[in-house]
Formats: sequence, C-alpha cells, structure tokens
Amino acid sequence: MSVMKAAGVVVEYNPLHNGHVHHLKETRRLTGADVVIAVMSGNFLQRGEPAFIDKWMRTELALCSGADIVFELPYRFAVAQASEFAEGAIGILAAARCGMFCFGSEDGSVEPFRNTLRLLQEEESGYDAEVRRIVKTGISYPAALSRAYRSIADVSADAGPLADLTKPNNILGFHYMKAASSITPEMAAFTIERTGTGYHELGADPDSGIMSATAIRKAVMAEGLTSDVLHAIPDHTADALERFRKAHGGFGGWDRFWPILRPLIIRDGASRLKEVAEMTEGLEYRIARAAHEASSYTEFMGAVKTKRYTWTRIQRILTHILCGMDKNEFSRLSHPRYLRLLGMTAAGRTYLNQNKDRFGLPLLSRAASTDDPMLKADIRASDLYAIGTGDRPGKDFRTPPIIAD
Amino acid sequence: MSVMKAAGVVVEYNPLHNGHVHHLKETRRLTGADVVIAVMSGNFLQRGEPAFIDKWMRTELALCSGADIVFELPYRFAVAQASEFAEGAIGILAAARCGMFCFGSEDGSVEPFRNTLRLLQEEESGYDAEVRRIVKTGISYPAALSRAYRSIADVSADAGPLADLTKPNNILGFHYMKAASSITPEMAAFTIERTGTGYHELGADPDSGIMSATAIRKAVMAEGLTSDVLHAIPDHTADALERFRKAHGGFGGWDRFWPILRPLIIRDGASRLKEVAEMTEGLEYRIARAAHEASSYTEFMGAVKTKRYTWTRIQRILTHILCGMDKNEFSRLSHPRYLRLLGMTAAGRTYLNQNKDRFGLPLLSRAASTDDPMLKADIRASDLYAIGTGDRPGKDFRTPPIIAD
Repeated sequence: MSVMKAAGVVVEYNPLHNGHVHHLKETRRLTGADVVIAVMSGNFLQRGEPAFIDKWMRTELALCSGADIVFELPYRFAVAQASEFAEGAIGILAAARCGMFCFGSEDGSVEPFRNTLRLLQEEESGYDAEVRRIVKTGISYPAALSRAYRSIADVSADAGPLADLTKPNNILGFHYMKAASSITPEMAAFTIERTGTGYHELGADPDSGIMSATAIRKAVMAEGLTSDVLHAIPDHTADALERFRKAHGGFGGWDRFWPILRPLIIRDGASRLKEVAEMTEGLEYRIARAAHEASSYTEFMGAVKTKRYTWTRIQRILTHILCGMDKNEFSRLSHPRYLRLLGMTAAGRTYLNQNKDRFGLPLLSRAASTDDPMLKADIRASDLYAIGTGDRPGKDFRTPPIIAD
Repeated sequence: MSVMKAAGVVVEYNPLHNGHVHHLKETRRLTGADVVIAVMSGNFLQRGEPAFIDKWMRTELALCSGADIVFELPYRFAVAQASEFAEGAIGILAAARCGMFCFGSEDGSVEPFRNTLRLLQEEESGYDAEVRRIVKTGISYPAALSRAYRSIADVSADAGPLADLTKPNNILGFHYMKAASSITPEMAAFTIERTGTGYHELGADPDSGIMSATAIRKAVMAEGLTSDVLHAIPDHTADALERFRKAHGGFGGWDRFWPILRPLIIRDGASRLKEVAEMTEGLEYRIARAAHEASSYTEFMGAVKTKRYTWTRIQRILTHILCGMDKNEFSRLSHPRYLRLLGMTAAGRTYLNQNKDRFGLPLLSRAASTDDPMLKADIRASDLYAIGTGDRPGKDFRTPPIIAD
C-alpha cells in the first residue's frame, strides 16, 4: 500500500456547521490528501467558554463530515491566546506527520500571510516596541497588536499585499503560519476563504445555508432547531444537538456553569485568584468583587469587563479558575506531550497503523491511569465540564475513541 | 451602678430548643450572674456541618431565651476538634471578663471533671504514650483518647469519681475545664445535667418537651414542624425555622451544599486537598475518588468513611474544603483576636459599656472592611454559607448586631 498523505485542520466545531463541512471538503480537494486530521479543542474553547456540546459528540460530527482522525488539542493550548493555541495545534499536526494544513480565513490566500510573517520578522524589534508603547496607554493587548501592525504595514509598501489582521480568522491563520514556520517549515500551508457571515456576526443569510457557530448557538438557545438553523447545519449536527439537550437538559455555556464558578471565586478570594493562569495584576480584585455582588453571569461579566481586558481573555481566566489551571502549571506545560485520539474512520485507522512508529509524540487511545500532568489537566477540565452539564465525571476513562465506518 | 457579674456559655443552637432554654435559666440561677454571655458558632459547626439556620437568626433566638450577649466563635475554633473549640470559646469568655461559665454535661457535677483533669495532668506522659500506641492500631483518635483514659482511670482508684469521657457533652465539658485551667484558672466552672435524650439520639420523649437538636432537625426535614417538635422548641424557634425555610427554600445541611462542594473537590484534586486544614495523610485520595463517583452526599460519605477517621472529623475537613481553610491559615490563627458582637439585650449593652475598656480583645460590632485574617475567614465562611443557602454573600457587612429589648 502506498504511503498515505495527511492534511491537518485546527477546529472547535462549536457546533459543526455547513461552513465546516465545506472547509473539510476543500481541504481534501486542495491538498489532495488521503486523510484529514483534525486537531480539536476539548470541552473548553479558545474564547474561554464551555463547549456547547461535549468533545465526544463533536468528534462524531467531525468524522461524519470529512475528518478521518480527531486528536484533542490539550486544554493547555485550547484555552490560551491565539499564538499558543496555534503552536499547540501545529505541534500536534507536525508530530502526526501531516505534510500540509489548511485553515479558513477572511483573506482566502496564503500569500498575504507569508508577506505579513516576513515583514513582522524583519521588523520584530520595532513592532514589539510599538506594541508595548500602545499597551501602556491602556489598550487591550490584541488591539495593540493590530494597531502596531497597521503602523508597521503603513510604512512598508514594498512588502506586497498583507493579511488584514483585524479579522479573527486571519489572526488565527497568521499564528498557524507563524507556528508552522518555526516548528515545521516544510509543512505546506493552504487557506480557503470563509464563506457567509463572519465569526462574530449574529445575523444569518438563510439562502446561503451558512450561519456562524455563534449565531447557531444563539438561535438554538432562544428558539431551538429553527428552519434557519437546520438549513445551516448537517443532519448529524441537528441530531447531536437534540441528543445532548435531552441527556443534559440544555447545552454547555457560562450561564449554566455560573453556579459552580461563583463559589470557587468566593472561596479562593483575590489572594488565591492571583495565581490563576493568564490572570493580570489587579483583575483578581475585580473578579472577586463582582462574584460577591452579581446574581447572574451576565451581571458578573458586566461588572468585570473594562477596556483593558478583552472579553475573551477574561473568559479564559474564568475557565482557568473553573478548571484549576494556575500560572505554575500553565508555564510548566509549554509543549504538546501526546496525540490524544478522540476518534477515527477506517482510513484514519490505516493511517495511524502506517505511521504510529514515526509519530513525534506517543499516541494515546485511552486516558487510563496516567501521571502525565498535561493529560491530568485535560481530564480535570472534562470532569468539571461533566459536573457543569449534569453528567458523570470520569468520562475520559470510560470512553474509547469513536470509530466511524 | 454596681459592677455587673457575667457568666459564659458555649453554644451552637442548631436550633435552639427547650434544653437550651433550661441551660440558660440554670446558668443565671446557679451563678447568680447579671448577664449571660453566649459564645456561639457561626454558620458552620463543630461536627463539620452547615448550620440549620444562619447565625443571625440563632442570635435572635439566644437573646429571646436568656442570653444577654452573643459573640461569634470564630470559624477557626468553631470548626475544630474539641480541645481547640474549647480553647477558643474559653479564651473569648475570659477576654470578655466572664468570672464564671456553665456547661451542660451528662455527669452534672464539676467534681468528676476536676478529678479527671488532675489525674490526666499527673499521668500526662503515660496517657500520651497510651494514646499513640492505640492510634497506631488503626483506631480513630477520639476513640483512642477514650480507651487510654479508661486504662489510666482503672489503675487510679484513689483519684475520686472521674468524668465519663465516652459521653459527648462530658468530653466538651472536660475540654472547657482544661482550657479554663490554663487560660484563666480564676474562672469558676459550673455544670448542669443535660435532661432528656442524648445528643446523638434521634428518639424523642414527647412528655418531657425535650428533643435533641439532631432529632429536631431530622423531624423538621422529614415532616416539618410536627407537634412533637413544637413541644420541644420555644415559639421563637418555630417562627425562625419557618422564616428561614420561606426565605431560603429549605435549611442548611450537606445535602444542599453538595452541589457546591463536589466541583471544589474535583477541581482541587488530591494534590491541593492535601493542604486543607485537618487533612490526614491519604484521606485526600479517598475524598477525591469518592467525589468523582458519588452522586449524592450520602453516597459520598459512605465511600469516604473508614474506622480510622470519625464522621465528625471528615465533615470538618469537608467544611474546610468548602470554606477554603488550609493548614497554613489554620495554624497561623491559633488564638482569638477579637470579640465579634452578633447581638445583645439592653442588659448586655450596659455590661459592654461598663467593661469594654477592660476587655482583653477588641470589640467588633461590624465586620466592615478589615484586614484581620481571622475575621476574613469568618466572612468567607459566611459567604459560602450564603451561596449554599441561596442567599446573597456579604451579609456580615450588611447586618448590624441584633438588638433585643
């Protein structure tokens, strides 16, 4: 049998919709890969939110929709800023011998990303100084990155077309490219243009059959599986949403986790919250105070939010509080340590059999008793997710990889 | 105006019943005191349980039933083994210039306690060695104390009548006497015999109008304010129970706090649980494992309990987990630091005015912003109690001392 070629994608599928199906199809077509490997966030996501449905169901959906292998992106990278999210994901794809990867972006072409990467590498010290200067004026870090980038780009007309780093998928794409260039420069990058509505937009274009995951979650929470939603998701997703809702009386989300989060904050108090991963000086007091006073998650976030911190960063910190990830643990776990298999198709299994001896990291099919500190953090996060959604903890030990035929 | 004489009592009132009213009356009669000062546990009790109704309501009941002043026994002593509970309480009574104290006991006379105290002081080294020997055989510490005591008592016939230290109130009484003898030997001790059913007995003797607090809680949970219960408690207590139930949809107790406790345990894991106050080596693993598997508090305790640890000790450890009390903080807070006033009658106020300049500790009428680490722990415990009973945190800041006229 000839050697199979693999292409990687980095995904969250919260939940999986038609745009994601398109991305998987196009990845296979553009790269000519025999198998598509998805590195997927577990039960907590990069925006610092509990997943709408759990990682096992999302794995099923991925396998039904064109992915052949799903590896879990460990909590340490899944709930982290874009650069670390990307480094973890690309590190895993590299260890799994992916020669190619493909991401969705607003730009839809890798050239502007290459130019941007080269420009920022050339101008690194000037860029860094500019970022530091802007952050000191009280602007959030991501906004400062974007401003510094614009001021560098303005004076570098000869760099060629640059990626628009104000767009959320472009930002992630840029970080994938950057991570790949340092971890595995031989990995070929592809991108497809994201179709339909933007990531944060809540509107839907019913005719296109594309809604953002955010819009889908919002609609499902408010009105259930409306015809617009059904038009924007595969049948598998509709079925999974229905099963999850029936089994758990609702979906994952902060409103539902607030009754667990709040006593954790109140018990720990500012002095212990200070130690939580990604906590910035002073924010622990705002969080502790708001938890005492707020009677709902919305009220709580309203009291915590300031211009200085992005919503996403605050939510990631809350996720770290919930899942017990402190600064120490976070910094100790700097690189991927395993390939955690959540599911595979028959083709995926063949690929794993062909390549497992060549993988750069150990392949884990089961979470069974381990002392690996990175896996322990994944399992802890899963257990907290289970508690929050009224499920039994220990699911990582009970659940074998999903096999799709 | 002549100098007022004060007698102290150490109480939990969970909830206050006719036996407690009798104790307050007898304390006043036997000691001839002008005012009775109650040192009362806050929202968590010595047996490691959330109070059935909160400390403010229990303060009201105390003031309606014969106490003139209620001071809060800080969490550090309220949720601690008998010796520390007693040292904290007697230390507070001493600081409040109580010349006398009176406790309920099975023995009903102070003489056997004096003999026991003298005997154990004389035989201290033999006693300690015997306790250590018995604990090593796998027996719980309190059971070992009791056995060692019996073996010492057996060979000391000339010590005079000794207290029966297998009885729960005798044990506490012994520790009050012991604490007083070292902190304030000039404080006169009195005891009255506890009437009616024993502390742990669930049966009731309807004719006597006496039920144990445990029996009352059990009956109220199962059937509400039955005629037996109403016969065993003052009207004030019946009214308070009804108000608490209406305001909070139920009462304080572990079943109700389990949904908060469980995620704390699962998040912290054995490695962090190890640091919790009173945690004994190895128990953290049992607790962590049981929290994963159990679906109710009863199931959880069934899985944690072994002969080696008393139920009470395990529950205190759970309380420390819930309230965030770790070994470090516990050992740093070794002595009372203030007299926290929860309520007073007119006579109580006169006593405070007469004596406040002579008190051995600062008098706190309000919890308002403080950096005192002992008070912070009290407030944190109150806040967790509020969360567990569906109340708003911060009650310590909002609630002035109860004034009864």
